[in-house]
Amino acid sequence: MIVILKNHPDEAQLENLITWLTDQDIQVHPTVGASQTILGLVGDTSKIDMDLIAALDIVEDVKRVQEPYKNANRKFHPDDTVIKIGDTQVGGGNLTLIAGPCSVESEEQIVEIARAVKKSGATMLRGGAFKPRSSPYAFQGMHIEGIRLLLKAKEATGLPIVTEIMDGSQLPLFEDVDVLQVGARNMQNYALLRAVGTTDKPVLLKRGLSATYEDLLMSAEYIMAGGNNKVILCERGIRTFETFTRNTLDISCVPVLRQLTHLPIIIDPSHASGKANLVPPLAQAAVAAGADGLLIEVHNDPAHAKCDGPQSITPKAFDTLAKRLRNIKAACEAAE
Amino acid sequence: MIVILKNHPDEAQLENLITWLTDQDIQVHPTVGASQTILGLVGDTSKIDMDLIAALDIVEDVKRVQEPYKNANRKFHPDDTVIKIGDTQVGGGNLTLIAGPCSVESEEQIVEIARAVKKSGATMLRGGAFKPRSSPYAFQGMHIEGIRLLLKAKEATGLPIVTEIMDGSQLPLFEDVDVLQVGARNMQNYALLRAVGTTDKPVLLKRGLSATYEDLLMSAEYIMAGGNNKVILCERGIRTFETFTRNTLDISCVPVLRQLTHLPIIIDPSHASGKANLVPPLAQAAVAAGADGLLIEVHNDPAHAKCDGPQSITPKAFDTLAKRLRNIKAACEAAE
Amino acid sequence: MIVILKNHPDEAQLENLITWLTDQDIQVHPTVGASQTILGLVGDTSKIDMDLIAALDIVEDVKRVQEPYKNANRKFHPDDTVIKIGDTQVGGGNLTLIAGPCSVESEEQIVEIARAVKKSGATMLRGGAFKPRSSPYAFQGMHIEGIRLLLKAKEATGLPIVTEIMDGSQLPLFEDVDVLQVGARNMQNYALLRAVGTTDKPVLLKRGLSATYEDLLMSAEYIMAGGNNKVILCERGIRTFETFTRNTLDISCVPVLRQLTHLPIIIDPSHASGKANLVPPLAQAAVAAGADGLLIEVHNDPAHAKCDGPQSITPKAFDTLAKRLRNIKAACEAAE
Amino acid sequence: MIVILKNHPDEAQLENLITWLTDQDIQVHPTVGASQTILGLVGDTSKIDMDLIAALDIVEDVKRVQEPYKNANRKFHPDDTVIKIGDTQVGGGNLTLIAGPCSVESEEQIVEIARAVKKSGATMLRGGAFKPRSSPYAFQGMHIEGIRLLLKAKEATGLPIVTEIMDGSQLPLFEDVDVLQVGARNMQNYALLRAVGTTDKPVLLKRGLSATYEDLLMSAEYIMAGGNNKVILCERGIRTFETFTRNTLDISCVPVLRQLTHLPIIIDPSHASGKANLVPPLAQAAVAAGADGLLIEVHNDPAHAKCDGPQSITPKAFDTLAKRLRNIKAACEAAE
Repeated sequence: MIVILKNHPDEAQLENLITWLTDQDIQVHPTVGASQTILGLVGDTSKIDMDLIAALDIVEDVKRVQEPYKNANRKFHPDDTVIKIGDTQVGGGNLTLIAGPCSVESEEQIVEIARAVKKSGATMLRGGAFKPRSSPYAFQGMHIEGIRLLLKAKEATGLPIVTEIMDGSQLPLFEDVDVLQVGARNMQNYALLRAVGTTDKPVLLKRGLSATYEDLLMSAEYIMAGGNNKVILCERGIRTFETFTRNTLDISCVPVLRQLTHLPIIIDPSHASGKANLVPPLAQAAVAAGADGLLIEVHNDPAHAKCDGPQSITPKAFDTLAKRLRNIKAACEAAE
Repeated sequence: MIVILKNHPDEAQLENLITWLTDQDIQVHPTVGASQTILGLVGDTSKIDMDLIAALDIVEDVKRVQEPYKNANRKFHPDDTVIKIGDTQVGGGNLTLIAGPCSVESEEQIVEIARAVKKSGATMLRGGAFKPRSSPYAFQGMHIEGIRLLLKAKEATGLPIVTEIMDGSQLPLFEDVDVLQVGARNMQNYALLRAVGTTDKPVLLKRGLSATYEDLLMSAEYIMAGGNNKVILCERGIRTFETFTRNTLDISCVPVLRQLTHLPIIIDPSHASGKANLVPPLAQAAVAAGADGLLIEVHNDPAHAKCDGPQSITPKAFDTLAKRLRNIKAACEAAE
Repeated sequence: MIVILKNHPDEAQLENLITWLTDQDIQVHPTVGASQTILGLVGDTSKIDMDLIAALDIVEDVKRVQEPYKNANRKFHPDDTVIKIGDTQVGGGNLTLIAGPCSVESEEQIVEIARAVKKSGATMLRGGAFKPRSSPYAFQGMHIEGIRLLLKAKEATGLPIVTEIMDGSQLPLFEDVDVLQVGARNMQNYALLRAVGTTDKPVLLKRGLSATYEDLLMSAEYIMAGGNNKVILCERGIRTFETFTRNTLDISCVPVLRQLTHLPIIIDPSHASGKANLVPPLAQAAVAAGADGLLIEVHNDPAHAKCDGPQSITPKAFDTLAKRLRNIKAACEAAE
Repeated sequence: MIVILKNHPDEAQLENLITWLTDQDIQVHPTVGASQTILGLVGDTSKIDMDLIAALDIVEDVKRVQEPYKNANRKFHPDDTVIKIGDTQVGGGNLTLIAGPCSVESEEQIVEIARAVKKSGATMLRGGAFKPRSSPYAFQGMHIEGIRLLLKAKEATGLPIVTEIMDGSQLPLFEDVDVLQVGARNMQNYALLRAVGTTDKPVLLKRGLSATYEDLLMSAEYIMAGGNNKVILCERGIRTFETFTRNTLDISCVPVLRQLTHLPIIIDPSHASGKANLVPPLAQAAVAAGADGLLIEVHNDPAHAKCDGPQSITPKAFDTLAKRLRNIKAACEAAE
């Protein structure tokens, strides 16, 4: 941590600050310039409250040098996290394809889609049972019945299931669910993060619309602080000034997060774009950038989907896409 | 609602769409141009799912003309909502001043600050008991003990208290709290919005970092859909590319929301800027723009505050500011 | 164009508006609802000033249905534009690789880099002679001498050259330059756009930091309105709240612009990320998303580059990358 | 400047870096921690190229401590800049009111508006002669004839005139213009900044849509580097995700820029909001936040203005507003 002092700081206050820091086992190295004094702090600064120092009269600015996350930090955990789910693995060079409808609508629908996407190479099934909708008047999902139907589809295909949990009180209903999804709107719902952190189920954590990489990793840290290290990060578009697409897919997150963390990173091109015809090129870009997998909305009748129809692709389009994704992955690896 | 068709739409599909719409009591008025056909939909289009129409092959785009919120909409509720809380009122021309520390830290601290801000004209006391912190390792508040101390301060001063609720399961602990605050990170935590919507307590709803005006009003709508109409909207800065200030105060929200909704609008300059020296000018701007009130962090010892010290002002600075705010309000009214 | 009227519009004013529109050969189709009247305008609305209508007392909002650009619009020009430059072509399925240093620094430097990148498959050479730098005190390029050295490198390798023009008055100096680059900061410098629009040289137009797709296409339209249709669009990152990367690469622009326009689209991963280690994954993503080419900074000694060293890759890294890009392109095409 | 080294940096490279820095009269103070080494650089670091250091293999990050602007920096020029223009002064506690139409349209129009706004207390007249329009097909202003008419209005009222210059080659036409305006789209058109920097005319520099405070001050620095210190900064809204208003007025810029620079700061609420009914509350907020003045679009017939009608207010509305602004300013000063 670096503390930049104001010009001509009060001597007594400076003395106090240095004593307070050294009492906490922090070594202080001052750099005195003509117009600026800088303090370099050495030691375990994660215990030191930046805001507290920044509030002092004699301090102009405080800059952090170390990342504030530990469990999620690749520096302390250099090896990739690989998460085993049923017969499949997320991370470690596997291409995870999670496909399925926005909402579960009927047994027939979900089983049919599950069978189709499995045949095309999907490794997990997604489907919403509890749906966060921006309007209180819109369809909110089939709730526990939706989970029951997902389990039917799992039974029929063997695909592990991923579905969204919206509140800690719902945990008992998710007992048989393979992966708990935390939605973008709940990325900083700390009560929920703590709740899923007490389980031993993998958590698919979606990046919030305006969350920085550090915000996302701090939310992962909340889950991991509870003892659950099975966190899968998911980029699903950020909010920018460009409104032609629903959100802006931040493809750079793949190589950046790869460097900052050991957790797997998957991309959701369906929510990122909001438009079915953009899903294939964005999915291709994600694989070429090195993503560990994709979360793709597939619906057998997009025009009559109960939610997010415009961003769902058909099982046939998914089949073509899945083939191409495998080719691209092979091309990237061949060239190494 | 307006539906823009693709060029040369399939006749049969168009017929289907029109029949489907008229079956739902929607009148369809086509405007046929040389290169474009537009359908104007008339009737209660709030029941119609935009996304569903947008997913059709023959549709290029759908644009909403009516706002998707009803209870919060000034068009349907032209009179300002005025919310009575203890002896004070929010909205309807009153200047609400909510002041207090970021976190409750001790009985002495909260009572002393409460007495000071009351003397300067504060109409409510704020203080965090449950604190949402971006790091799981940072101080998370005194929890139920914090609420107990806030109630002591209320007893000592008569000021109603405002404090943040983070999860529906905490509701029983908030029985004696006057105003429930929903934080920016939870603005789209729909489980929490529904929970506070079942109470009859006023809710101070903070705008999310990247929430549009419509998003904010839809979240208010969630609370109101449960029967609780006592919603106070609070702008506390949005996330933009400018990082010199912690967030960017969107001052335009005051006149815009005034026009779109009948709910009171208050401004939190402390979180918007993150810096104590910016609080007074931003608070002044808020009053001059017509805000119903302010939420201001005041701490008797900012340099030793347990959180958000840099953005807290002293009781003395608050006293000077409160006087100036009343002067500005008078100047705005005199000129009318 | 759609005009949404306020409730209970003044009859006389409405009459005036309709007469004024029909006088301009616009047909007006009203859709009268209980709470809203909408006018659908049919005809060549590109002549109608939206702002003028929006300013009327009786009008609540005006929405455009047709895009405001014509020459750049794929609707009116369905075939891909292919631009011939020397022996190479941009667009139409070719993979254009433009490589070279941020700044031209010496004959030795530029010729050496040109030879290396040509060997690796580059199809054009880039290099800055006039450099827009955010500080007036930073190195601003070698000016005309820089162009002279670029021409030497062209002579040595046969690679066409691309370099930035900052002001219309510089045009005579660019007589032998193959492609004129207009920088992101000048994307809406209309005097410059008009100037390059009078030439017959291809123009590489970079997207501004906060330019929407429509803004970018309107700037292309400025150039094309002068008679120069050889415009190459270049995405180089947009400004968002995420500051870990210098900018945020908007990869969705590739499929979106492909749909909106017939002009070729290339990606500059060097400026988008600002970091050399992010250039390869972003370049790969761009090819997988369907981009027509890449603009990549290559420097033989990045640590001593006179500008933008951190984002330059070495000739060796470029060689590896170019191979992988060709593999990915083949993989995408094979799967079709 | 602070250099954060990677773990276990190569000794020889580190030695080289330190020698290179000390050769440039920079003192290097290392702070060696268990997991991190930091170098504090002391001396005139404005000569040191941050990017060059950041490109080194052994360097993880470089952070600037000193601002990169000098002439515009309050640290080196503590007194407010006050700019005399005709009989009026900008800065130093004056309330500058610049009013007038978006475009000059006729002698009658501009003289009538000039007379009206002068009577209401305007201190300068604005009006566009050369208009930057996003469409090449829209009205681009009356050009030199527009300037001639502005001079007529100046003759009639004595008000100094402000009008936009779009290219350095236009300078001779602006000989009698009092204040040169550089538009937001040209904020980083360095050729233009250099050109106006060679004159002795005051320059009203508008903040670009996505320019940080530092970007804006660096553009001012370009002008001042040429010897022209008469720069007036103007905030006119930034681009964010919120599209209800045309742009988002960043009101915090007033107190922030006041602290960073000695240059006067004015606010343009017309372009910031794009809507006439938002202009008064935003103008009031600007004065309450401490702005040195306002730039307001006033048109005698907004519904028939040739551009930007929806954001223009009438002379009558301007008169009411101007009175209220003076009251607010007095209220702010009284309370001190």
